[in-house]
Amino acid sequence: MIGLSNYAGVMEGVMNSAEEQQASSPLTNSWSNKQESSENPKSNGVGGFVLVHAGAGYHSESKAKEYKHVCKRACQRAVAQLKAGALAVEAVAAALVELEDSPFTNAGMGSNLNLSGEIECDASIMDGKSLHYGAVGAISGIKNPVLVANRLLNEAQKGKLSAGRIPPCFLVGRGAHDWAVSHGIPSCPSEKMATKFSLSAYKRNKRKMELAETMETGQTKKRRQSSENGNSSGCLDTVGAVVVDLEGNVAAAVSSGGLAMKHSGRVGQAAHYGCGCWAENACNMNTYSTAVSTSGIRLCTLHK
Amino acid sequence: MIGLSNYAGVMEGVMNSAEEQQASSPLTNSWSNKQESSENPKSNGVGGFVLVHAGAGYHSESKAKEYKHVCKRACQRAVAQLKAGALAVEAVAAALVELEDSPFTNAGMGSNLNLSGEIECDASIMDGKSLHYGAVGAISGIKNPVLVANRLLNEAQKGKLSAGRIPPCFLVGRGAHDWAVSHGIPSCPSEKMATKFSLSAYKRNKRKMELAETMETGQTKKRRQSSENGNSSGCLDTVGAVVVDLEGNVAAAVSSGGLAMKHSGRVGQAAHYGCGCWAENACNMNTYSTAVSTSGIRLCTLHK
Repeated sequence: MIGLSNYAGVMEGVMNSAEEQQASSPLTNSWSNKQESSENPKSNGVGGFVLVHAGAGYHSESKAKEYKHVCKRACQRAVAQLKAGALAVEAVAAALVELEDSPFTNAGMGSNLNLSGEIECDASIMDGKSLHYGAVGAISGIKNPVLVANRLLNEAQKGKLSAGRIPPCFLVGRGAHDWAVSHGIPSCPSEKMATKFSLSAYKRNKRKMELAETMETGQTKKRRQSSENGNSSGCLDTVGAVVVDLEGNVAAAVSSGGLAMKHSGRVGQAAHYGCGCWAENACNMNTYSTAVSTSGIRLCTLHK
Repeated sequence: MIGLSNYAGVMEGVMNSAEEQQASSPLTNSWSNKQESSENPKSNGVGGFVLVHAGAGYHSESKAKEYKHVCKRACQRAVAQLKAGALAVEAVAAALVELEDSPFTNAGMGSNLNLSGEIECDASIMDGKSLHYGAVGAISGIKNPVLVANRLLNEAQKGKLSAGRIPPCFLVGRGAHDWAVSHGIPSCPSEKMATKFSLSAYKRNKRKMELAETMETGQTKKRRQSSENGNSSGCLDTVGAVVVDLEGNVAAAVSSGGLAMKHSGRVGQAAHYGCGCWAENACNMNTYSTAVSTSGIRLCTLHK
């Protein structure tokens, strides 16, 4: 098992300049990478910065190569966006799409299945320039939940709806799905989002759960386990990214399929305002720009 | 139109001692009430304190009497619980049930209808002693959403589920409804939760929206209104309460039917961790106990 997979790319004129930074210790390495790479993003004429991670949980060592590759692709995709003049919020969404599209991450395609054998995803995105925020929770049948969160953010920036109604910034469940489809984001059959790996993990977890419940029934109806019996499904393996664009704006995003065998309708921190991600440009009140994408840990704080 | 309806009750041995405190200015009055009544809850042998409000939006003056009555009943119900030895979190849930049961508040019975003509509620509760939190978002067909939030909090306090699974603290939509029913909370047909008032408000809002959209189409496809066109549906009229029990524990809760004509699946701040309510007992790190129930405003901070 390996720890956090992360990847940082600093724009230096060529796409392949992104430096691979595999963390042996998730917290300490992502922190030192960040400090070295971003203390002054513009000091050497470099105007953009991208940092992505493919999950704070634990991953199979056999898939280490895949995790590194998807991080690299996500980083490159965001860098390409920045080079084309995109703002931080657009670039961070592009990075997340790449992470969600990988069948190896617990986000979008290949997400954990819930108790009912369905995929329900959480995602959120924040723009440090406008401080606007968009999030979806327990959304099914959408390949890229971060695109719905981003669309919510964009729509909210347009102002009020007809008759002075306040636009939503957080939608959940069926309503979130329907809103996405009505805004041009295509539906994706849930069975296409499950992978061989996620389906076999579901079957394994279900057997484990049934066995545990049978044993509990046979004992003194002790329904709950001790805290030592951890969830082996790789909890907290949320994916995320933070970006600084050429103008120095920051953005952050996060996406997760949530805990394996969670109850239908459970929303995790990836969709919570102020919990899943945060981005805030420097201003008169703040000396520093901040962009954070969490998975139960602080991933990064970027200094302006 | 009248402003915030609130009510405070300090236990003095008799039930009817609760003092009616109608705020002429919601922010300033609820603040001064709090300071006078709770600076030291035990200083005169009084061990409990309850403060409730029936909505931070604007209410029809014709219903002022009803709002005061429901606040009084909610306060009395919580005080009765405290007298019977209940903890703050149980008493605050009891107060919220009374507020939700009133057809005049935008919570539980008589909540605002959404765009599809359905009722979807948000609620959350926090126990200052354990710091446990429970919330539901966009839940339909449950008369008292706060009871589901409270049950989530209670279940989480029991520890992990079978096979080491982490219990949910925030459930939304259909999943939240099904979890509630499977935990003994009865379903309530949505048509029974709508009132004559909420149905006529829905029809009025729908006509207004359609008229606004027709006018916009006739103009230059200006889809959005200026920020001056406020939502006349009494936005932010969330109900809530804060309680101190005989042991000095604090708890807070909040419940809302959300914005009128909101999109299906929209979750508002009442269900957001750290946004809808907060409760935290005093400890070595904190000199003060804090209990807050928000509706876009800070309602109350209680000093130990």
